[in-house]
Amino acid sequence: MDMDKIKRTERVIVMTRVLSGMPNRIIPYGRFCEMFDLAKSSVSEDVAMIQKAVRDWNLGEVETVTGAAGGVRFRPRLADGEALAFVETLCEKLNAPERMLPGGYLYLSDLLADPELVRKIGIILAGPYYNQGVDFVLTMETKGIPVATMTAVALNVPLVIARRASKVYEGSAVNINFPDGKGGIETMSLARRAAQNGQRALIVDDFMRHGGTARGMISLMAEFGVSVAGLAFVLAQEAEAPLSELQEHPLMLFTENSTKDALVVRPAPWLEQA
Amino acid sequence: MDMDKIKRTERVIVMTRVLSGMPNRIIPYGRFCEMFDLAKSSVSEDVAMIQKAVRDWNLGEVETVTGAAGGVRFRPRLADGEALAFVETLCEKLNAPERMLPGGYLYLSDLLADPELVRKIGIILAGPYYNQGVDFVLTMETKGIPVATMTAVALNVPLVIARRASKVYEGSAVNINFPDGKGGIETMSLARRAAQNGQRALIVDDFMRHGGTARGMISLMAEFGVSVAGLAFVLAQEAEAPLSELQEHPLMLFTENSTKDALVVRPAPWLEQA
Repeated sequence: MDMDKIKRTERVIVMTRVLSGMPNRIIPYGRFCEMFDLAKSSVSEDVAMIQKAVRDWNLGEVETVTGAAGGVRFRPRLADGEALAFVETLCEKLNAPERMLPGGYLYLSDLLADPELVRKIGIILAGPYYNQGVDFVLTMETKGIPVATMTAVALNVPLVIARRASKVYEGSAVNINFPDGKGGIETMSLARRAAQNGQRALIVDDFMRHGGTARGMISLMAEFGVSVAGLAFVLAQEAEAPLSELQEHPLMLFTENSTKDALVVRPAPWLEQA
Repeated sequence: MDMDKIKRTERVIVMTRVLSGMPNRIIPYGRFCEMFDLAKSSVSEDVAMIQKAVRDWNLGEVETVTGAAGGVRFRPRLADGEALAFVETLCEKLNAPERMLPGGYLYLSDLLADPELVRKIGIILAGPYYNQGVDFVLTMETKGIPVATMTAVALNVPLVIARRASKVYEGSAVNINFPDGKGGIETMSLARRAAQNGQRALIVDDFMRHGGTARGMISLMAEFGVSVAGLAFVLAQEAEAPLSELQEHPLMLFTENSTKDALVVRPAPWLEQA
């Protein structure tokens, strides 16, 4: 045995760390072969061990991808049942009376500011979209940006931010006007350079009540010739009819209480299978 | 030897994955002892191996923290020289003529949208502040939010977002007016619940030219009785005098060219030691 070889324990630590730091990116076996001066068969054995340990301990998903652009890829996922349990504790927090604001609003900003919470929310919202060919995440400024950032990081795609008005430092832009769902009209703007014809977007936002902003983002994508893979919200109003033909993945659903001065929040049903 | 014990290879994979997923958080040894039904001495040996491998391969920093709240902590860091090399490639991209916009502006949004870039920028900007008792990251909406999110995730502290106007869903707010550095006055608003007296903030923003917004954020923090640990920018104008008494960590510095229609960008000198 060549004692200069890097030991397996060291190799799996390094590979686990590298994979964890690059979610949803395919790392060619060759890269690890070079790093460790090792044959592909040995690297494959290491990967199989990492794959098994990560799966057994519910710490995400390590997959081998075959073909010319093949290699190994790590996708963050919460453990079975962990997503639902996590969202249940979020709902408990949101249902606390001190969160209710005048006019039937809910104070959410601190939750959308917590690094551990936004990280987990991003991982949950990315989950249904890993295999859907998403090219970028789209959000509308401002409150949803941290969650949208973490969703984009989990999916390893860019985050594109629509603005309320076009900005000089974004160059030429496409502006649309859209009904806000409350009887008014709002404007949404996106830099021309931010999206290309034929791409596929995942729409992420923190809050959806009347659906005006979400419909606006769908129209905006149509202007760019971009298809929409789905809609993901942190908190969405329970509606009798869906917003569109598109699949929706809200984390939590809310209804107004009988006196309409408070919201009642519960986990979205799809999380039971997530 | 008890064959029911989980093998070292599996243990170090699991521990490396857990630590990577929880940056700058102290995980008590007891947690790993329970997970693996193992004595603290064996967990310590595993941690020592992870520590050595992560350090030898320049994949961050694994530290043991002693005392009652002790345990083991992972801090993401780029390899020696990697931060500077990374910022040099960023500067090359920014100095491309097609990035220049009318009025001496620079198109930055796509770089601030790239998940790999914002992750790395967040890690670099967090670096000088790991040991400075930062309670939260403060940014002003909108473009800096993804980078500020990733800095907050690396530091494991909340992200607080100042707004241009107070919003009904943020409850009562503190508003300040501040000179924008170009002869005008702007407004900045922050929910009262977002910060507490005695806390310590790290200010992160994407762009700093006249320093108006940065000085505004410093004033806003003074209103809340919050001290400022420092200022971190993605791109800041080279100035003869510093903005304030506070330490500044820009990633890149820019000057205007002689005809003032383009910016020239270079890595900030502190990165040579980062």
